[in-house]
Amino acid sequence: MKFIEKLKKISQKNNSLLCVGLDTDIKKIPLFLHKEDDPVFSFNKKIIDSTSDLVCAYKPNIAFYEALEEKGWESLKKTTDYIPTDIPVILDAKRGDIGNTAKMYAIAFFEKLKVDAVTLNPYLGEDAINPFLEYDDKLSFILCLTSNKSADDFQLRKIDGKPLYQLVAEKVLEWNKKQNCGLVVGATYPEQLKKIREIVPNLPILIPGVGAQEGDLESTVKFGTDKDGNLAIINSSRGIIYASVNEDFADAAREKAKKLKDTINLFRKK
Amino acid sequence: MKFIEKLKKISQKNNSLLCVGLDTDIKKIPLFLHKEDDPVFSFNKKIIDSTSDLVCAYKPNIAFYEALEEKGWESLKKTTDYIPTDIPVILDAKRGDIGNTAKMYAIAFFEKLKVDAVTLNPYLGEDAINPFLEYDDKLSFILCLTSNKSADDFQLRKIDGKPLYQLVAEKVLEWNKKQNCGLVVGATYPEQLKKIREIVPNLPILIPGVGAQEGDLESTVKFGTDKDGNLAIINSSRGIIYASVNEDFADAAREKAKKLKDTINLFRKK
Repeated sequence: MKFIEKLKKISQKNNSLLCVGLDTDIKKIPLFLHKEDDPVFSFNKKIIDSTSDLVCAYKPNIAFYEALEEKGWESLKKTTDYIPTDIPVILDAKRGDIGNTAKMYAIAFFEKLKVDAVTLNPYLGEDAINPFLEYDDKLSFILCLTSNKSADDFQLRKIDGKPLYQLVAEKVLEWNKKQNCGLVVGATYPEQLKKIREIVPNLPILIPGVGAQEGDLESTVKFGTDKDGNLAIINSSRGIIYASVNEDFADAAREKAKKLKDTINLFRKK
Repeated sequence: MKFIEKLKKISQKNNSLLCVGLDTDIKKIPLFLHKEDDPVFSFNKKIIDSTSDLVCAYKPNIAFYEALEEKGWESLKKTTDYIPTDIPVILDAKRGDIGNTAKMYAIAFFEKLKVDAVTLNPYLGEDAINPFLEYDDKLSFILCLTSNKSADDFQLRKIDGKPLYQLVAEKVLEWNKKQNCGLVVGATYPEQLKKIREIVPNLPILIPGVGAQEGDLESTVKFGTDKDGNLAIINSSRGIIYASVNEDFADAAREKAKKLKDTINLFRKK
């Protein structure tokens, strides 16, 4: 099944545009989990169990797993295996390398970890993206405008009167021959998000930065969704998964996720 | 010891600017190695044994190891541990993520794998680089102008009359407060390399693309080195490590490495 169909299906079933970011930091999970064989997976399992009817996707950021080396890869694989098959897994990897190397990352993520989508960096241009686009049913979310402060170092700078992020959005539209491209746009830039949605009316947009990074939720939903109020994937990581550090952490995460999902729905076009 | 000192020391000892890229693809190594416990490490070990007196650095590209998941991480760790301590290890990772995530990658690479340097992607700006720059003795090579064809999608585009890669070089110079930044510039763009060396006279430049990608060697050496004929790290991966697929692969790699090292030295300023 194409990624977009899978996304639309679960998004409708769960009535949700919420993505939960599994940026699981071993130093931030409840202490009592440390007695488990695989504390990171145990944590993720409970978060998934308590939120899987509320989300349209999960997004593990691979950096948090790589910090634990081979053990982290095992936790990540167990996590991606554990996520119910009707919920898309977006691996936040932000990779970008020349063709023969990009191919290796595509194998690692799409064939070995079997995730449904990845995030990629556009700096190297089309060569670095193509090996991922060969996978028809997978999706590549390309960084357009990121949620961090120094995004303005380069992404907001103008090329022929047009900001770099806009040029990226236009290029991605060209690369989208198999309908398997999307964009990443931070919630911290609502006006630019509006502009980007006009450029790519039919592409899924992954939007981080509504939680700990404090992007404005109403304009994120209004500007990030398509004409039917869909195709925006609104991510919160730290704001949900670390809602409590006690035995009740999974319930607390569920509560935060439910609240965010409902608030997002309030602002969606009907 | 600061990275630059370590680099200069080994570069002088081995009279070399050559870096061997350990982009070890399990599908390309000699078949007879597949009977070993860890074929990738066995291959790397023999390559290192046969070239360690000829190089100024080794550069494993992590994508090739990630394609083998947790087993790949083990091979990578064994490899970085095995490289003689006086030879810098540059992990080609091309990472770029927001601050709290970048910190995780920095832990993975500098604290766990204990490599001496990494390659990073500038698209997210200074935030994404800072967590790496906190490590005084390590070095961060930031992608400036890459060796692939589609580098011109964005890197050669002009911002206020100046190509993006040049803006990146200037920014990196600002970020270099602890003298622990370098640049990555592909050998396939000799004229631009000259311009970049003028902007950063004292930064190490990592230069891929002289082997399989066919960059011009004479201008690479001439334009890439500093005023003393140093601080260029000229990488070849496929052109050296896959010189033969037979029992003699390590000797064949040595021969290719020696030839490339000597040719580079021919073109160096005295």
